[in-house]
Amino acid sequence: MLMELNSQAAIAQPGHFYAVGVGPGAPDLLTLRAARLIESAGVIVAPRSERSDESLALAAIRDLIGEQEVIENIYPMERDRERTEQCWRTVAEQVAERCARGLAVVQVTIGDPLIYSTSAYLIEALLDGLMPRERVHAVPGISAFQVAAARFIDPLTIQEDRLMLMPATDMEAVASALDRCETLVLYKVGPRLKALAALFRERGLLGQARLACRAEQGEGESYLQDLTGDLPGELGYMSIVIVRVGRKEWR
Amino acid sequence: MLMELNSQAAIAQPGHFYAVGVGPGAPDLLTLRAARLIESAGVIVAPRSERSDESLALAAIRDLIGEQEVIENIYPMERDRERTEQCWRTVAEQVAERCARGLAVVQVTIGDPLIYSTSAYLIEALLDGLMPRERVHAVPGISAFQVAAARFIDPLTIQEDRLMLMPATDMEAVASALDRCETLVLYKVGPRLKALAALFRERGLLGQARLACRAEQGEGESYLQDLTGDLPGELGYMSIVIVRVGRKEWR
Repeated sequence: MLMELNSQAAIAQPGHFYAVGVGPGAPDLLTLRAARLIESAGVIVAPRSERSDESLALAAIRDLIGEQEVIENIYPMERDRERTEQCWRTVAEQVAERCARGLAVVQVTIGDPLIYSTSAYLIEALLDGLMPRERVHAVPGISAFQVAAARFIDPLTIQEDRLMLMPATDMEAVASALDRCETLVLYKVGPRLKALAALFRERGLLGQARLACRAEQGEGESYLQDLTGDLPGELGYMSIVIVRVGRKEWR
Repeated sequence: MLMELNSQAAIAQPGHFYAVGVGPGAPDLLTLRAARLIESAGVIVAPRSERSDESLALAAIRDLIGEQEVIENIYPMERDRERTEQCWRTVAEQVAERCARGLAVVQVTIGDPLIYSTSAYLIEALLDGLMPRERVHAVPGISAFQVAAARFIDPLTIQEDRLMLMPATDMEAVASALDRCETLVLYKVGPRLKALAALFRERGLLGQARLACRAEQGEGESYLQDLTGDLPGELGYMSIVIVRVGRKEWR
């Protein structure tokens, strides 16, 4: 049945580039479209941060790799615009060169390619004179906040609710956001969990704040149903807090 | 290769309920996990609004339906709390009864079950004394805003950006949100496109506002790259506007 569905799905077209979200890491959270594009591509670009031993995205699709050329591109984690742009410019040139030779190129990326993803840089570099827009595609993937919410079986939004996604880097911006949405999702919690908990305590929100680390990444997953108890120390980059601030009723 | 991946995926467990997101409507935007759960369930609950001839979710998974019992539940579109709750209570009782008989039940829902989805009501009714929490599950799906963004190849967020999702029902709330995020996603645009365009014109955002109707639903899809030209009149419920308000740079 699945194979039948699969055969209807688009295959990667020669000379085209696809930024493909592979979801959070669990191989079965790929979409059928993503799997089919990866299988049928000639070249797979897999980003790996300079702090990681392995590309998470490549690990998620290991079973789909056969004859494809795999280009692992190592990108900087520090906030250095020039180095970041130079890195992605180099990858973009490799992609454009393969596409010009008639190959189909897929960049795999954890989560969704348009939500806090390195795909944004590669797409920007490609569209900056290297490839025409109609040959550049994005294919959505399940984002980390969606699997975190699913784990807690807690609706993110109903009816009139507002949902805000942001990185947890600026505490003032987080405090301001708490006043203006019904559900707040904080990415990149990393070392800031205790500062966040202090803020939530002031607002009476500790019991409505949930923590998910490496959700559905297969290894090292952990979850906290609320932040009222003892908190872990330093968390990794792949940690998310979801706060249910309130609910807006039908007017 | 896909079948192999698929065989690793979880199958629906007897006595358990799963709220499964099937994505926007295109069958190949299901995840492998969703497909496997649907195939292996004993009962499929498919919501259909009283204004529709057909359940969109059921149409998206038509090829996965074999021997499963299909319960189409018709839900009210009007804002009537009592009628809505009564409707979902009835469905929840049907689900709990099947689960008690050892069947696995999947509710299919367009998009993601925790983002503006009817699944929220069914989950709430089930957890209100009908089923224990550990037998109720949510499986994420690609949400409409993700396919709309993918169509425009336009990153929703990078770096420090904030992303806000909300319904387009309250113009004052929309105006306020424009001040407090870098990307604003408006659901349920329906009859309010011209009012939105007037607001965006004031803010100089007409050129950065994109419109997607029934994105990846297979039929009746339409897109506007910006809102500077002539605008369509009444739009359906499944219409989304994405406004790029700005970009927050690395600090």
